[in-house]
Amino acid sequence: MPAISTKGLAMPESPIRKLVPYAEAATKKGKNIYYLNIGQPDIKTPKVALDAVKNNTLEIVSYSHSAGFESYRKKLANYYQQRGIPVNADDIIVTTGGSEALLFTMGSITDPGDEVIIPEPFYANYNGFATASGVKVVPVKASIENSFALPPVAEFEKLISSKTRAIVICNPGNPTGYLYTKEEMDELSALAKKHDLFLVADEVYREFAYEGATHHSVMSQKGLEENAIMIDSVSKRYSMCGARIGCVVSKNKEFISTALKFAQARLSPPTFAQIASEAALETPQSYFDDVINEYVDRRNTLIEALEKIPGVRVAKPKGAFYCIVELPVENADDFAKWLLEDFDYNNETVMIAPAAGFYSTPNTGLNQVRIAYVLQKENLIKAVQILEEALKVYQNN
Amino acid sequence: MPAISTKGLAMPESPIRKLVPYAEAATKKGKNIYYLNIGQPDIKTPKVALDAVKNNTLEIVSYSHSAGFESYRKKLANYYQQRGIPVNADDIIVTTGGSEALLFTMGSITDPGDEVIIPEPFYANYNGFATASGVKVVPVKASIENSFALPPVAEFEKLISSKTRAIVICNPGNPTGYLYTKEEMDELSALAKKHDLFLVADEVYREFAYEGATHHSVMSQKGLEENAIMIDSVSKRYSMCGARIGCVVSKNKEFISTALKFAQARLSPPTFAQIASEAALETPQSYFDDVINEYVDRRNTLIEALEKIPGVRVAKPKGAFYCIVELPVENADDFAKWLLEDFDYNNETVMIAPAAGFYSTPNTGLNQVRIAYVLQKENLIKAVQILEEALKVYQNN
Ligand SMILES: Cc1ncc(COP(=O)(O)O)c(C=O)c1O
Ligand SMILES: Cc1ncc(COP(=O)(O)O)c(C=O)c1O
Repeated sequence: MPAISTKGLAMPESPIRKLVPYAEAATKKGKNIYYLNIGQPDIKTPKVALDAVKNNTLEIVSYSHSAGFESYRKKLANYYQQRGIPVNADDIIVTTGGSEALLFTMGSITDPGDEVIIPEPFYANYNGFATASGVKVVPVKASIENSFALPPVAEFEKLISSKTRAIVICNPGNPTGYLYTKEEMDELSALAKKHDLFLVADEVYREFAYEGATHHSVMSQKGLEENAIMIDSVSKRYSMCGARIGCVVSKNKEFISTALKFAQARLSPPTFAQIASEAALETPQSYFDDVINEYVDRRNTLIEALEKIPGVRVAKPKGAFYCIVELPVENADDFAKWLLEDFDYNNETVMIAPAAGFYSTPNTGLNQVRIAYVLQKENLIKAVQILEEALKVYQNN
Repeated sequence: MPAISTKGLAMPESPIRKLVPYAEAATKKGKNIYYLNIGQPDIKTPKVALDAVKNNTLEIVSYSHSAGFESYRKKLANYYQQRGIPVNADDIIVTTGGSEALLFTMGSITDPGDEVIIPEPFYANYNGFATASGVKVVPVKASIENSFALPPVAEFEKLISSKTRAIVICNPGNPTGYLYTKEEMDELSALAKKHDLFLVADEVYREFAYEGATHHSVMSQKGLEENAIMIDSVSKRYSMCGARIGCVVSKNKEFISTALKFAQARLSPPTFAQIASEAALETPQSYFDDVINEYVDRRNTLIEALEKIPGVRVAKPKGAFYCIVELPVENADDFAKWLLEDFDYNNETVMIAPAAGFYSTPNTGLNQVRIAYVLQKENLIKAVQILEEALKVYQNN
């Protein structure tokens, strides 16, 4: 029998999907599950984007330019400029989701054996992209005590070796909800410049910054033009995760022309989804205002309810729609399984994402879970109530 | 300044796109160009597929299952079964184009430094995917004298080393149009089994087999279940290249579960395009009959006209919509540039793809070009006439 590659065997399973078989079994038994584990918003996609696809007049669905529709890239550049991010259409490659933007970036700046430094906990699929590229993730631990603020820059510097190619951050953070301050961005920028590293910022949650907090894009850092790479996506911004449109943005011409070669090999990003994404740029501000209000409301509801549970600690998120929650359990993985397999409260239960999969240091975050507040308020309240009841039962077991 | 990776620098430029700047300059000067260089068909996408997208009732464009819609995979399995390809929904992962299917396959079966054997000339982007995966392409030369039939299996066997992981074929071939016989498939299958190699067949042109010729899928090879991997795509079949839907298919469970981990890391294939692709399965047979008739007609017209030009040799393709043409020039790359920069016939010229980029052996196919017959007959006739006039002028230069 022919052999699977070492790389293929090493590819991590997604921590979010690992529990799916247990959830399926629970559903079969008739249990109702509140899904707190996924980042799939329940918010409607803007009508203007949906309509553009419905009203398209294509007769041949042909390949687009490998970097994406020129019209879309121009409008996208304009969109960024309006947000103080000084980029042009030529600095942008449209990708199949932020996911592909991350893959092109890894391919363009790392070789097998190279290292990237990432504050943990981080978006779990960074592990997958790193493994696929043969790259080692070197984590710097951020802690719940500090609400997952940037660890001291000295901690990063200690880890920089001749193999380090980049520092990767997610801002606002998935799974932490942390939003980096201007000072933190400046410190990271100085470090990247000092050591000739790329600073890759995954800003797919840029629009989700709460209570007037300002988002500081890596692309707005003065003097960082050659080092800064931005990852973006329409998935969360317009609640159209299934479109599969994102982009990679940089002022570094050599980087962009390298990423474009990866883009050319796969021909083009999806056409229908580009039509949707281009139209989505016309989404009225009221849509975002409503969405942000909704998320702030959900967040407040969630955090308030969680903080009332004895032994629970949570870092109040300033952006995105996730938070890391510390539970009074030893092993959140076991607890999450138990919730699906053995527990119910009026025939209902909750599904949570054990946080260990968001750390790359082994045996870290074992008593933490990630909760996504992508459910309606009433359901969030019910879900937290179920969690509270479950913890009582579990602790007495 | 931070450094681009060795891999990124090694990524090949697409031979099809290399001449684009020259074409753009020619267009600016007002020259009309006949594009014989690209594989973007001018055939209309089936109405049933376009309508499904127009009539979609999604309110939230959410992620699909990482392996694709279950409904689509089931219908796809049925579609294959009807064509004598015995596969189930579980053997299929829906991908973002055949391109992504190739990438997942490379990732799942090769590690950096591994080798894959491919008969050349081959689809140029195999070089890109191999480079992205750190894999070495080991070519076996097929020759125009034999119409690009499979080189003797002994030639493959000579090249098998401890690093060889797979043999990759394209059937029908891009750029050759060659369709492998049952005997050739049997020989390759025996070889793959003998040496425990994967046999990867890129069958994205399966439906384009002419004059009643039978296509022999790698998935129909008895006893090859653990070794066979099929790459497929809706791009050419339904002339919807921009949809970006393909799939990777195998009976090897370990392979499929590995490829699924790559699929999970990138979350999901595009939703609108899956809607189009699922509906496209309802395309009436008459659509394909018309398309095949059209291509056969174009092919006959093209080949007949080319064979009349002194010094031109062409291998008559049995499938797909490309052919390799040997020209009475020393360097087809120079000639192709000259056509765009310095030549016109009544202010018109042609764009052709120099074939060297489809070979991985250096300095091979230098006097060959790939011609795609994706233009209407009248235009093909005009284009060949221009080529003939150009050759006269070029040879006297
Ligand atoms: C931090 C982060 N980056 C990137 C992605 C990838 O998203 P997509 O490929 O849908 O753009 C996600 C999706 O959840 C994410 O949370
Ligand atoms: C032989 C072959 N394989 C794969 C592909 C990739 O096509 P897609 O990613 O559009 O499915 C192409 C496109 O031209 C091709 O010719």
